[in-house]
Formats: sequence, C-alpha cells, structure tokens
Amino acid sequence: MRTRPLKVALLGCGVVGSEVARIMTTHADDLAARIGAPVELAGVAVRRTGKEREGIDPALVTTDATALVKRGDIDVVVEVIGGIEPARTLITTAFEHGASVVSANKALLAQDGAALHAAAGEHGKDLYYEAAVAGAIPLIRPLRESLAGDKVNRVLGIVNGTTNFILDKMDSTGAGYQEALDEATALGYAEADPTADVEGFDAAAKAAILAGIAFHTRVRLDDVYREGMAEVTAADFRSAKEMGCTIKLLAICERSKDGSSVTARVHPAMIPLTHPLASVRGAYNAVFVESDAAGQLMFYGPGAGGSPTASAVLGDLVAVCRNRLNGATGPGESAYADLTVSPMGDVVTRYHISLDVADKPGVLAQVATVFAEHGVSIDTVRQQGKDGEASLVVVTHRASDASLTGTVEALRKLDTVRGVASIMRVEGE
Amino acid sequence: MRTRPLKVALLGCGVVGSEVARIMTTHADDLAARIGAPVELAGVAVRRTGKEREGIDPALVTTDATALVKRGDIDVVVEVIGGIEPARTLITTAFEHGASVVSANKALLAQDGAALHAAAGEHGKDLYYEAAVAGAIPLIRPLRESLAGDKVNRVLGIVNGTTNFILDKMDSTGAGYQEALDEATALGYAEADPTADVEGFDAAAKAAILAGIAFHTRVRLDDVYREGMAEVTAADFRSAKEMGCTIKLLAICERSKDGSSVTARVHPAMIPLTHPLASVRGAYNAVFVESDAAGQLMFYGPGAGGSPTASAVLGDLVAVCRNRLNGATGPGESAYADLTVSPMGDVVTRYHISLDVADKPGVLAQVATVFAEHGVSIDTVRQQGKDGEASLVVVTHRASDASLTGTVEALRKLDTVRGVASIMRVEGE
Repeated sequence: MRTRPLKVALLGCGVVGSEVARIMTTHADDLAARIGAPVELAGVAVRRTGKEREGIDPALVTTDATALVKRGDIDVVVEVIGGIEPARTLITTAFEHGASVVSANKALLAQDGAALHAAAGEHGKDLYYEAAVAGAIPLIRPLRESLAGDKVNRVLGIVNGTTNFILDKMDSTGAGYQEALDEATALGYAEADPTADVEGFDAAAKAAILAGIAFHTRVRLDDVYREGMAEVTAADFRSAKEMGCTIKLLAICERSKDGSSVTARVHPAMIPLTHPLASVRGAYNAVFVESDAAGQLMFYGPGAGGSPTASAVLGDLVAVCRNRLNGATGPGESAYADLTVSPMGDVVTRYHISLDVADKPGVLAQVATVFAEHGVSIDTVRQQGKDGEASLVVVTHRASDASLTGTVEALRKLDTVRGVASIMRVEGE
Repeated sequence: MRTRPLKVALLGCGVVGSEVARIMTTHADDLAARIGAPVELAGVAVRRTGKEREGIDPALVTTDATALVKRGDIDVVVEVIGGIEPARTLITTAFEHGASVVSANKALLAQDGAALHAAAGEHGKDLYYEAAVAGAIPLIRPLRESLAGDKVNRVLGIVNGTTNFILDKMDSTGAGYQEALDEATALGYAEADPTADVEGFDAAAKAAILAGIAFHTRVRLDDVYREGMAEVTAADFRSAKEMGCTIKLLAICERSKDGSSVTARVHPAMIPLTHPLASVRGAYNAVFVESDAAGQLMFYGPGAGGSPTASAVLGDLVAVCRNRLNGATGPGESAYADLTVSPMGDVVTRYHISLDVADKPGVLAQVATVFAEHGVSIDTVRQQGKDGEASLVVVTHRASDASLTGTVEALRKLDTVRGVASIMRVEGE
C-alpha cells in the first residue's frame, strides 16, 4: 500500500459534510485498505468558523473555500455545499488546480452538468455524483456502468422523500395536503420553505440527470416537464382507491417507441397498488429501470439524510481515489446518442379526469364526442348524480398529452361542464 | 475514438452466450461509443460445431477453446460455460496470455475466487463477474464500489429464481412441494435435475461470493451453511400465514454484533408479509443490503435468463474494455478484513417449531423446561389438541442456532414428544 496519503478537501460541513468527515476519521483504516492508500482530510471550508465541529481539527477549518481548492496538493474535492454558486466556480477551480471532484449537488449537475463534465475532461479529472440522485441508493453507477451494455427504455421512480412522505400520509390517513405537509414539517421531513420539494423542482433536477445518463443524451433542466403536488386532494386519493391505485409524485424518463426521442417529466400520477412503487412508504425512494436485455430492475432505499448521502459520497470518494492511484479516470459524460428531447405534448399515457357536469340527459354524449373529436379513446366512464349536479369520471386509453390538453380545453367550453375537478395521469401499468 | 477494435473471445454459446453475441452485433455502435473503441467478436468456443448459430460467422466458431484463449490477441475472454472445469483452466490461461476475463460462473467463483483473483492480479488483468449473482441485478458493483466507503452489516436476499417460483406457487395455491416443482419443470423454471437449485447449492455459491465482497473477507463455499427447501410443506405455509409470514429460501450473510466475525447461510425461513422480500413473486430475485451509513437498500430484478444475464455480462465487458483503454484495472479481490467466518451454531435468530405431543397435562411444562434449560426464551406457544394427540407450536425469542439445536435434541428425548414436525427460522423482523 502507498503510505503517502491522498488529500481530500471538504466544501461544506452541514448534515452531509460532517458525516463524511466523521466516517473518514472513524473508518480511516478501512478506507485506506479499500483504496490502497490512506486518505487525509486536508481542509474543510465552511461559511462561518467558530462553531465547534466534533472530530474535526479546528486548524483544518477555513472560510476561504477558493484558497482551499487552489492549494494544488488536493487530490479530491468533496462538494456538499449545494446550490449553483459558489459551488460551480469552486468545482471548476478545483479541476484547474489538479483535483478530481465528488459532488452531491443535483441542482448544479442538472443545470451545468455538461460544462462541468467538459471541464473535468479537459483537465483529465473525475467528476462523480452518486449522492446527487436518491441519496444512498446506487443508481448513477448502475446506469452508467452496470447497464452500459444494455439499452435503457424507461426510468420511473420516486426520487423525492419529502413528497412521498406527504402523499403516503394522505393515502394512509385521508388527510388533506396542508395537514400532511404540516406534519412533514413538524417531523423534519419538509423544510420551512418546501417549494423545491412540493413543486417538483428537486425531482426535476434528478430526472434531468437520470435521463441524461440513461439515454446518453444531454437533457437540460428546462427539458423536464414539471408539475408539483400541492393540488393533489383527499378526493383524488379516493378516486385513486376506486381504481385500485394510489398517487405518487413520479419522475419519468422515457424513450419513444421508435427510439429516436426521449422525454423527461415530473408530476403526480396514479399507479396501481400492485406496482412495487405503490408500496414505497414514508420518505423512502425507489426507482424502476426498464431495459431491453435486463428487463425490469428496481432500486430502493433512503433517498436523503446525512448518513445515507455520506455513504454515496464516500463510495465515490473511494472510486475517485482508486482512479487517481491507477492514473486513470472513470467514465465521463456520455451524450453521444444525442436524441431529440421531446416536449410534454408528445408523451403518451393514460388519464383520469374528474368533471363537474350538469345532471341532465345528453351530457355524457356531449363529453364523449369531445374526447372522440380529439382522438382520445375512453376506457371507462363513471357518472354520479346529486341535486341537478353530477360528476363524471373518465379514464382514457393511451393518448398523447397534446391530445388530452386539447380535449380538456374543449370540455371547459361546454355549457354543461361546470368545471374540471382534476386531471391525473395513470402510470405503471 | 480508437479505431482498432478490442477483441473478445466468447467461451460458450448457449442461452447466455448467444444473447451476448447477438447484442454485441446489434448494438455494436452503442458499445463502441460507450467504450471509446469498437469491440469485435474474435472467436466463439463451443462444444460441438455444425449447429447453425444465427448472426455468428461460422468461421469464428471453434471447439478448441484452449487455442482461442491462447491466441494472444484477445483483449477480453467472456466465460459463460459454467462449472469448474474446463472453465477454471481456460480463465487462468486467458490471464497468462494477456486477456481480462468476464465470467458468469458462480460455482467457480465461489470455489476458486481467491485463486482466480490472484491470477488476474499477477498478470495485471481484470476479473469481473456481475452476472454470477442475481442475473441482471447490479449487486457486485454496488457492493464493491458504491458501498466501498460504508460498512455492510447484512446481506439478505432471494438469489435463486427456481426456488422462489416454487415457494411462491406453494404460497399462492396451497400446493405441495412436488406439485409446485412439477409445474416449475413444465414451465422451464426448473431443470430436469433440480438438485442445485432446490438443495440450495446455487444460492450457497452466491452467498459465498456476496459475503466475501460485503465483508472484505474470504468466504469459502464450505463456510456457507446450507439447507434445501424440499422439506417445506403446505402445513409450513399454513403455520407461516398464522404468524403473518410467508416462506422464502434466503441467502443471509451477517456480521456479528461485535463486528469481529461473519456468517453465511442458505435455508428456508419465515419472513413477515410486510417485509419487501415477501412480495417478490415468481422467478424474480431481490437482495436487501443493510449498512451503517446507507441504511437499508434493496435491489430487485430478474435473477436469471439469457437476456438479463447477458445484460450483466455486457456491462462488465464495457467496464473491462474501458479499463484496458485506460491502461488500468478495476478493483480486485478485497479480503483485507480477514474476519473469522463462524459456524452455523453461532448464528442468532428466531425459530418456529412445531411439535407433535401427547395430549395430557404437564406436557407444556415439560417442553417449556427444556427450552429454559438451553437458554432459549419462548415468545409464544400455541397448543392444539385432537384425540389424545396434540400439536404445540413454539416461537422463540432470538437464540443461537447451537442452543436451538440442543433444545431440539433434548425435546426429541422426551417421552411426551412424539416428533418434531418442523423447525423454521424466522427472519427479516
């Protein structure tokens, strides 16, 4: 074994960073044996010094992250600050000064992955980021390496623990959205400002990263259709139950039937209770991957939290250190397929639509005509009347999102349609 | 991209090999883009020539596998023959003549993994074998790389599709073992001689491989305790249901509480219906991994079959080819921890025991005394009497296998115990 240690700079020492530092210290011998050389924490960049950080030598702590990544003797920079800046500049500077990078930064990777990969490649360095998607669950490495000889057609998953906790709570207790969100906040599963989670921004960043790797095609954050879950109601869950379904916020990356284009989207959707994703409870994550040869694979585990995220970061750290000792780099960005990324309108799926309609003869015929005119074939209709008002629940066969949107616009114009109570996609069948 | 192709020799052209060859041909462009150089099928060794092999140039086919691996211009040998010899000699010869090796051979890896790794290391070559365990499910790579910075405490899984198909059938239809096995044979899920599957030999080989990688310790096939599933009865399934459980053939690799030793075992066990492994249907495989930092992860997918196994083989092929272009090798054997591999007697778990006893006063007291004398604490007892005979179902708290074995021996000597109808371990709680 080499005795001269590999030097690691840690950017950020919050929930994840402090856990990374702790494991690097307590498991130093194991890490050394697995890498083939000791690893040493050479510096820790934080926003404010003065705070006691258990197990970290205060002499290593600095507020000058830029100076740290510019030192020139750093082998690996571990970036767990999050956000776009200063993380982006620090990572680029790290490559320029000879370091490889391990990052947990989904927002940055989704937005600037291509540029960061290019910078890494230019300097012959590694950029690893298993922790950016679904916490401890190995997903980037299986997609990038284990399935490198296969053709992935679909990635379908629950990649945000906060929203899954809320939806699971609504499903199991009948609670409304706000009530479930309040509980998630009280228990620490949701942040004070839950926008990034409940509006699907977090999941969309992960979808962009997963789609890019799965399809060997650059998928920008803007390419990902995004719909949050704040409008999911207790009534939607009752409708879902009647169909033998539950509701999950899903990230779905799909290759088109002819293989020439891909789509990526995040939205709430009904999935059958018999689907393995339906039984993913609480803040857990799970991702289904469908490929030509392997068939259906599922990866399940804790999608967030300090320790699980640190596990993923450290796995990458070991890999990057081994590469350095080998004088090699791991697989970089693979975007050779360069497929068209199609808009949401091209997505083909099934829909569950609840309409409030006038309770009089001929309404169903009118509604059915509108669906037919837009080429959307109806699977089932259920009609429920009360006091001159009625509700109509329509479940369609597979249709394009554009056709469905056109149908709904036309339905809204009918005098007999008082309102469109909800539209939900049906997936996983 | 490099234009000179990497040369691949395929040993074996059965269900898996023919699929590997097919994908190498149909996906040649993708493989080249992902590797950074084209790959070329340079030779295919088979037992008998003359058979038409779709998509394979007959000029490449040979019965002389030894000459093929000795050619000297082969970059990667893909071994999908199975069995110990000639596979072992061919792999060793391949290393000696400059090739890296991808293998799907669980029996060989479990028996001679250490020697093969040593041969690979000596010649600076790669030995990859993702396909040897659980078919297409990425498991070796996640354990060896993704969790390289974590401490794995337990691997618990369904790693044999044939036995899971049979047990699932017994569970869902109430069928007996023979009836379910006959159906599995008729449908092609079980081989004409099902011994390797139903007696747990196949699962034990996989357990040895998984335990070795998970605990960074050599675990020989002989170290794995093995009990088949041929004695599981319809009555056992009824007992399991009464406990809210089902029965699965599990491979379990565990680190002891104090961390100094490990165990590996394969046997049928009851697991709660609420455990994710309980809902693994048909011939699917699923493996739970528990580690310090990541927590509980699960990997699920098709555990066998030509295409899924080929997917795993090709993922390894891409990795090994990339390593060759990099002039590097991937992680080799990691056995530095060198933990004690303890015998089955040291395993601590819970037990479900059915006894046929005389239906007279004092029997329960006698039986309870025997458990107490052996330090095995009873959780629940259920007594059922009929015509002077009675059955007693005892579920214990956690106890060592040695204590339980002692208890059962003593129970058999009691006059009032007519027989021990079944003993089953209870896992996953």
